Amino acid sequence: MQIITSRDNPNVKRIAKLTKRYSARSEGVIYLEGTRLCEEALLSGQTPLEVIVSEDRINWAEEFAQGIEPLVLSKDVFKKISQTVNPQGVALIIKEPSLSSDIPQKADGKDIYVVLENTQDPGNLGTIIRMADAFGLTAVIVSPTTCDPYNDKVIRATMGSVWHIPVVRKTMDECFAFFADKGIDTLAMHLKGNELGAGELQLPCAYFIGNEGDGLTDETTAKCTKLVKIPMKGKAESLNAAVAASVIGYELSKLI
Amino acid sequence: MQIITSRDNPNVKRIAKLTKRYSARSEGVIYLEGTRLCEEALLSGQTPLEVIVSEDRINWAEEFAQGIEPLVLSKDVFKKISQTVNPQGVALIIKEPSLSSDIPQKADGKDIYVVLENTQDPGNLGTIIRMADAFGLTAVIVSPTTCDPYNDKVIRATMGSVWHIPVVRKTMDECFAFFADKGIDTLAMHLKGNELGAGELQLPCAYFIGNEGDGLTDETTAKCTKLVKIPMKGKAESLNAAVAASVIGYELSKLI
Repeated sequence: MQIITSRDNPNVKRIAKLTKRYSARSEGVIYLEGTRLCEEALLSGQTPLEVIVSEDRINWAEEFAQGIEPLVLSKDVFKKISQTVNPQGVALIIKEPSLSSDIPQKADGKDIYVVLENTQDPGNLGTIIRMADAFGLTAVIVSPTTCDPYNDKVIRATMGSVWHIPVVRKTMDECFAFFADKGIDTLAMHLKGNELGAGELQLPCAYFIGNEGDGLTDETTAKCTKLVKIPMKGKAESLNAAVAASVIGYELSKLI
Repeated sequence: MQIITSRDNPNVKRIAKLTKRYSARSEGVIYLEGTRLCEEALLSGQTPLEVIVSEDRINWAEEFAQGIEPLVLSKDVFKKISQTVNPQGVALIIKEPSLSSDIPQKADGKDIYVVLENTQDPGNLGTIIRMADAFGLTAVIVSPTTCDPYNDKVIRATMGSVWHIPVVRKTMDECFAFFADKGIDTLAMHLKGNELGAGELQLPCAYFIGNEGDGLTDETTAKCTKLVKIPMKGKAESLNAAVAASVIGYELSKLI
């Protein structure tokens, strides 16, 4: 097994480029680094296009990425491409799951969709994907202006859930066309909505969460069949976007 | 009004030191910078010990910090002390609210406490403080090992709620002594707990949330009167700590 010791090796140069998200994105791939992130992806059934390890982690490649010849780098060269201060010596290139696929439906019709219009914070997006996976939602739908679901911070915050639940990118128009066609309730989370109460909710249902600072656009709000808000008995006037999405997701999941 | 133009001015040196959290903390004060953070604190009734503005924001000081003579810095000098790339030219030094005060109680006995044992992520702590304020909880109690509630990232994530709801630092022993004395239910959020259902919850109640990676310590779990978990119908095995805290806070707030 050859250990690459030169930073000028063409494979090293190519991988180094893919560690930049905009480069990887333009090639339809994702660069993952670190033991936890890589193992989550592999254990979830993702097939790596490439496995990159430092010379002291060859055993890891043999254990977790059987049948794929790893690119083995010297510790120094791995450190060069690494995005972290203390590299763990393992990285993967995987194909980006298609964001352009259809919106899935469950056989029993008990679908719950969370639709994100212009969510900007990677931590919020990741936390919402994790929550959606935990509560058994059908899919997370993101608007074209929502932050990249395969951003490193998003992937970390999902704790592996990004590989378990479909994340679909659709325009708001495509969403409303689909939901209208399938007879699916559309709820806007809005501070002017009715307080969420018993009987307010039914499945199938799609609920819309807006941008952290500005909430939903007026256009999207106007197209939803209902406006709802979470009852708040205290002083703060609003909740973090991921918290709001989670409370509704939790309430809806009681109906599954 | 004098404009300080030297970086060697003793007041500038003193403020520059307080922009470091460990220095401010050791003096029992908080350094706040930026229009939103400063206005939230002032509008919530915090009295600044000092108001610092750049020469182009003197009007702001006159509007928001009446009766306090601001320290006016040239734009260059303000940029020197600023913790941001594009300074907004306003900062405050305020006294740190006491973390060592007693645990408060409501007159109607409908108390809800969220107790954080070793929460490490500032975003999670801030989001929990904001949620607690929104849902009308009595107080947020933090263990000595939980991250500093007056860390800049925590304050930002609370969106002002850190000034509205008591945040109290107590050891777990002090908490259990208080809750036992007052006859308050103690719930451990634990993956081995009973699924939260109707009738499971009653007020007054304190619920305990553990560290992001490790959950609650065995010692704390053993001292709680009940173990509960949030029903999860999907695949992810756990939720983000702030999401879990919020779902329970929301369910308990229905009983207020």
